[in-house]
Amino acid sequence: MKPTPKFKLAPLLAFGAHPDDIEFGCGGVIANETRAGRAAHFVICSRGEAGTHGTPKQRTMEAKKSAALLGATVEFIELDGDAHLEVRVAHVIKLAGILRRIRPGIVLAPSLVENQHPDHAKLGRIVRDATRLARYGGLKELRKSPPHAVDQLFYYAVTPEAEPRDITPVLIDVSAPEIVAAWTAAMAAHASQVRARNYIELQLARARLNGLRAGIGHAIALFPNDPLVLDSLLQMSRSARRF
Amino acid sequence: MKPTPKFKLAPLLAFGAHPDDIEFGCGGVIANETRAGRAAHFVICSRGEAGTHGTPKQRTMEAKKSAALLGATVEFIELDGDAHLEVRVAHVIKLAGILRRIRPGIVLAPSLVENQHPDHAKLGRIVRDATRLARYGGLKELRKSPPHAVDQLFYYAVTPEAEPRDITPVLIDVSAPEIVAAWTAAMAAHASQVRARNYIELQLARARLNGLRAGIGHAIALFPNDPLVLDSLLQMSRSARRF
Amino acid sequence: MKPTPKFKLAPLLAFGAHPDDIEFGCGGVIANETRAGRAAHFVICSRGEAGTHGTPKQRTMEAKKSAALLGATVEFIELDGDAHLEVRVAHVIKLAGILRRIRPGIVLAPSLVENQHPDHAKLGRIVRDATRLARYGGLKELRKSPPHAVDQLFYYAVTPEAEPRDITPVLIDVSAPEIVAAWTAAMAAHASQVRARNYIELQLARARLNGLRAGIGHAIALFPNDPLVLDSLLQMSRSARRF
Amino acid sequence: MKPTPKFKLAPLLAFGAHPDDIEFGCGGVIANETRAGRAAHFVICSRGEAGTHGTPKQRTMEAKKSAALLGATVEFIELDGDAHLEVRVAHVIKLAGILRRIRPGIVLAPSLVENQHPDHAKLGRIVRDATRLARYGGLKELRKSPPHAVDQLFYYAVTPEAEPRDITPVLIDVSAPEIVAAWTAAMAAHASQVRARNYIELQLARARLNGLRAGIGHAIALFPNDPLVLDSLLQMSRSARRF
Amino acid sequence: MKPTPKFKLAPLLAFGAHPDDIEFGCGGVIANETRAGRAAHFVICSRGEAGTHGTPKQRTMEAKKSAALLGATVEFIELDGDAHLEVRVAHVIKLAGILRRIRPGIVLAPSLVENQHPDHAKLGRIVRDATRLARYGGLKELRKSPPHAVDQLFYYAVTPEAEPRDITPVLIDVSAPEIVAAWTAAMAAHASQVRARNYIELQLARARLNGLRAGIGHAIALFPNDPLVLDSLLQMSRSARRF
Amino acid sequence: MKPTPKFKLAPLLAFGAHPDDIEFGCGGVIANETRAGRAAHFVICSRGEAGTHGTPKQRTMEAKKSAALLGATVEFIELDGDAHLEVRVAHVIKLAGILRRIRPGIVLAPSLVENQHPDHAKLGRIVRDATRLARYGGLKELRKSPPHAVDQLFYYAVTPEAEPRDITPVLIDVSAPEIVAAWTAAMAAHASQVRARNYIELQLARARLNGLRAGIGHAIALFPNDPLVLDSLLQMSRSARRF
Repeated sequence: MKPTPKFKLAPLLAFGAHPDDIEFGCGGVIANETRAGRAAHFVICSRGEAGTHGTPKQRTMEAKKSAALLGATVEFIELDGDAHLEVRVAHVIKLAGILRRIRPGIVLAPSLVENQHPDHAKLGRIVRDATRLARYGGLKELRKSPPHAVDQLFYYAVTPEAEPRDITPVLIDVSAPEIVAAWTAAMAAHASQVRARNYIELQLARARLNGLRAGIGHAIALFPNDPLVLDSLLQMSRSARRF
Repeated sequence: MKPTPKFKLAPLLAFGAHPDDIEFGCGGVIANETRAGRAAHFVICSRGEAGTHGTPKQRTMEAKKSAALLGATVEFIELDGDAHLEVRVAHVIKLAGILRRIRPGIVLAPSLVENQHPDHAKLGRIVRDATRLARYGGLKELRKSPPHAVDQLFYYAVTPEAEPRDITPVLIDVSAPEIVAAWTAAMAAHASQVRARNYIELQLARARLNGLRAGIGHAIALFPNDPLVLDSLLQMSRSARRF
Repeated sequence: MKPTPKFKLAPLLAFGAHPDDIEFGCGGVIANETRAGRAAHFVICSRGEAGTHGTPKQRTMEAKKSAALLGATVEFIELDGDAHLEVRVAHVIKLAGILRRIRPGIVLAPSLVENQHPDHAKLGRIVRDATRLARYGGLKELRKSPPHAVDQLFYYAVTPEAEPRDITPVLIDVSAPEIVAAWTAAMAAHASQVRARNYIELQLARARLNGLRAGIGHAIALFPNDPLVLDSLLQMSRSARRF
Repeated sequence: MKPTPKFKLAPLLAFGAHPDDIEFGCGGVIANETRAGRAAHFVICSRGEAGTHGTPKQRTMEAKKSAALLGATVEFIELDGDAHLEVRVAHVIKLAGILRRIRPGIVLAPSLVENQHPDHAKLGRIVRDATRLARYGGLKELRKSPPHAVDQLFYYAVTPEAEPRDITPVLIDVSAPEIVAAWTAAMAAHASQVRARNYIELQLARARLNGLRAGIGHAIALFPNDPLVLDSLLQMSRSARRF
Repeated sequence: MKPTPKFKLAPLLAFGAHPDDIEFGCGGVIANETRAGRAAHFVICSRGEAGTHGTPKQRTMEAKKSAALLGATVEFIELDGDAHLEVRVAHVIKLAGILRRIRPGIVLAPSLVENQHPDHAKLGRIVRDATRLARYGGLKELRKSPPHAVDQLFYYAVTPEAEPRDITPVLIDVSAPEIVAAWTAAMAAHASQVRARNYIELQLARARLNGLRAGIGHAIALFPNDPLVLDSLLQMSRSARRF
Repeated sequence: MKPTPKFKLAPLLAFGAHPDDIEFGCGGVIANETRAGRAAHFVICSRGEAGTHGTPKQRTMEAKKSAALLGATVEFIELDGDAHLEVRVAHVIKLAGILRRIRPGIVLAPSLVENQHPDHAKLGRIVRDATRLARYGGLKELRKSPPHAVDQLFYYAVTPEAEPRDITPVLIDVSAPEIVAAWTAAMAAHASQVRARNYIELQLARARLNGLRAGIGHAIALFPNDPLVLDSLLQMSRSARRF
């Protein structure tokens, strides 16, 4: 059983380039956090309009349904459009503004590995830079909202190719049956996408593999942007080396 | 204030190639753990007899005094002697036997980086392999003691050169004044060594630099051998990115 | 359909540290090659006597049965015993002698990644050096057998942790139903091992994940020791980037 | 002797930032493929107008002559001009359109290593992203042409500094005298460039060095963007480890 | 005592994204070079107007005072403004023009590591590309100034996180008391910044740590963009390996 | 013209696993140093008795002739014999004793890259550890000779495969015609080896390629074990980035 937090937790904020990226990349982590009492909010940066399957309208509805299944709220923003994203300072500042509004503890973003859908790595870089600019007091575009420093930025990998090779991952235990169920349902809610390809199987196989490594059911790898800081090793008592 | 552990903690076991390696490399972490109520035990694998300064007898006494200052117990074992260590399976099995006897949760060992005192990296490899062999039930030399799987193996770096570049570190907050004081006293207890070189200044400068990065006083970097496994992100709410 | 080789193929030679390593790490590749008409031979360097489950006698029988299911012949050699392997030149020369006797084209060995069962990486290094020494004409211990140069040495990874991060893998398509079936049967033949842990599930999940990446059923990653040399790009017309 | 392809081969498509990049970086590979019966097409993205030597008109003519010597067709496109290239989505989509028109099997692009002429790495990134966007069905700018997935994207290195250190290369055997002759002639056709610097010597020295490593005459290293997928190891029987 | 140069030295040119970056990142190196008789010039690319502390006017004055303390001249240029920098070819050409005007031997720029203030890495990339474009004779924007090739480009790291892990550093000895004093004074001249955070302590701790490694007082690490070329090993007789 | 050293230079000490390794790997550097007035001494650790060509007696004579052509003295030591070398502390101490006797400034050893002749990387590791143990005052086997700290340890690469990818090389200019001639003659002196394979061509092609990169005739890459420490950037005024 997960502990009830004694103090109000800073919310989790997850960014996705397309309507289904967060769910496929780390939906189980979201379910795990909301169940533990943390608020979660999604910011989705396109309607997936360049994809082969699904209309923008369909995909928006799927994303809303999926977020609800994970216990998260969701908003859509306009950057450059699906498959058209560029890394611009204007985007960085826009996201920094969202960070100052939501004031999250944990931020999740797609990984920086370039050999994947180009929007993923670009959004990852925009989010990374936004977590810095959100801290700078003199930024005139954001003068009205007070600076905000997040606790930690983690990257998620939408596909195996997107897993960074130069960051040691942390594995989040998502083995509880209700977590796996919520995650699977959230992925299935993206009906237009899962009809065409084996995305759910891919993600569950990845999580199962991580689970087998850790001697548990399922686990999702996250990749910290900065070294973790611990009060003591009491916080850190499990590792993945079962085989 | 650190939490009182509700259940009995598995002890911490630290290995050092020479009488002062543990203290210089991660003494503050030891002080931090023992103060939080965890038992700590040191296994030292030579008397430092090849060093330029100090006799074996002196160094043994210094190590005992130093361990006591950190709240740890200490034992000395014979492998091949200072500056003569080789990576032999016989040593691995000997250390696996100690692991089965002490049954630690956390194990600390010198890092595997080869460009440092040769004994350090070799001992790190011996410990790493020992944490595996300790788990194998059929090992005839250890038939009398039940297998044991540690929770996590962390590497410490005795010098900056020994910090692995391919593992993301975790930073342990050792800022509490009594921790810094205990650590400094433990290093100073190695009087034969600190007389000759600026070891204490080196270690405190490293810890201060890590502390400045994390926005705290002092921090010591540890390098996990395997991915950390977390119940949830609630466990992980600080990171190092202050500048 | 696979092509019938017009000329006699040099055999494949696979080395395993324990009776089940080859099957778990790359059994599907073996089935694939023997089905294409290539002879395959296994050299197993211990009886798995340090493992938690299975007696040496049982494990020998399991290995023989398993090799037969893959269409391979098998021999056992004595090095230092399970969990006792050391990298010695004497072992390298012994294996170089086997290379000169079998005269393989392709050699398979466990990967060099150190953070796995210690015997695996050590055997990988012994095999790598043996493929070199097999070529040197003046080696007096092997004076009676003519030098031999292999075509290529590939590493296999018994577990996910053993996959090298610094070598670009090649993925071998093992999707044919009869290949998957032969591989699964060969793994199941190691009854003493698979009873205790989810090894088969682990390996099939890995192969399925690679298959999904490549847009096929199942694939096994091998890691070449040296750059591949091609007559032309006609040989190389598929890649893994489906998601 | 090279085999006559029994089925029509998908063409090879090579991109160059300047009129001579393809020839200097991998001209021998082109000659090798066209001689084996594969069509090759060059897309050149500037006239080299920022270079120290040669006028745009001269360089265009040199490129046409050179492509003809290699058996390739050539077209010029306008992006941002020599030394002015930027990585823009508009360029990515333009190149994705060319990919859908030519429908190549193999694509060649300059490597992503940043410490070379800036246009090279930028063009490499544009091509890499274009091979992805060419597959996405919903991209409105390309609605009229059906999606296309290439078989493999390989990078070539115009200079030694441009060779990626994190990808295992494949070496293409270009030792046949007529291939070396065609390649040398194609390089010499860039008269305005080779007059000023030892480019031909540089490239032949690189190819000779690779050849010596592989025990053949000359070889050119290509760097695959994604893991190669093989039907079996029969496809892969040579490697580079002669010294 | 440092040697008096017998021939006129090409000047050193350092680029900073913000008014204090050069001083914090490598001020001691500047003092060391100007004292040895080399001219030094700073190009600062913003007024730090997005920072939390200090007005643009204040910061400009601080930068001028600080440069003077180091014996350097200084100019300010406008790119996109603090926290708004983008990597544009127009900026690269602007900086290439400055390179042709100043005609430096050594160039210093912030490192390319992305996980720091975004302006730093972007400026590093702009400078790197500018050192190339400065050499190309046909660049029409710069037609009036003759091409210039710098001797070496070194990166400096404003913070520990900005130190590249894939380049072997060179350590510059800045131990002379007057060098440390000049550097400290130059950092202190940025009064608006050092009031708020422990920047001076951070930089001196870093330099002291490098000094301890090298067995000297203080040293600053620089990271060469290209391999150093030496007439002989006589030039290179010290290294850092004291612990 | 090279400067006449005003003070007596500490000698250069080069280690080779086989009679021809030093000459093939870095003979030009030796010629360059001895010509500049530095004494050079070779320690050769086998007679090449496992090689395909040449008898031990022949090879000893070739090595002596070759060393003389480079202006170096030479001694042979017995470790484990050609192709039989193991990394033993006894060897490390033996070499540390030689270091204390010769008291070199610069030490040259084969690189640590494992995928080459196994003796090379092993000797590199033995030399690296020997340069450390030579400094430790308490080592009883070496009690009679005073500790010695070398200025710098550089690795040379006998073949392209042996070039480390994780160390930034320095390139030594060996373009002077008499240096190239002396080096070529020294390689040719190993008549039993160069008769069988294109070793000289291989080495000159490598050096020419490095020379072309640096805009000079020929250059040899060395790989420093530790960061270089410089008095100032005046020492460092050339770099390799001509193409």
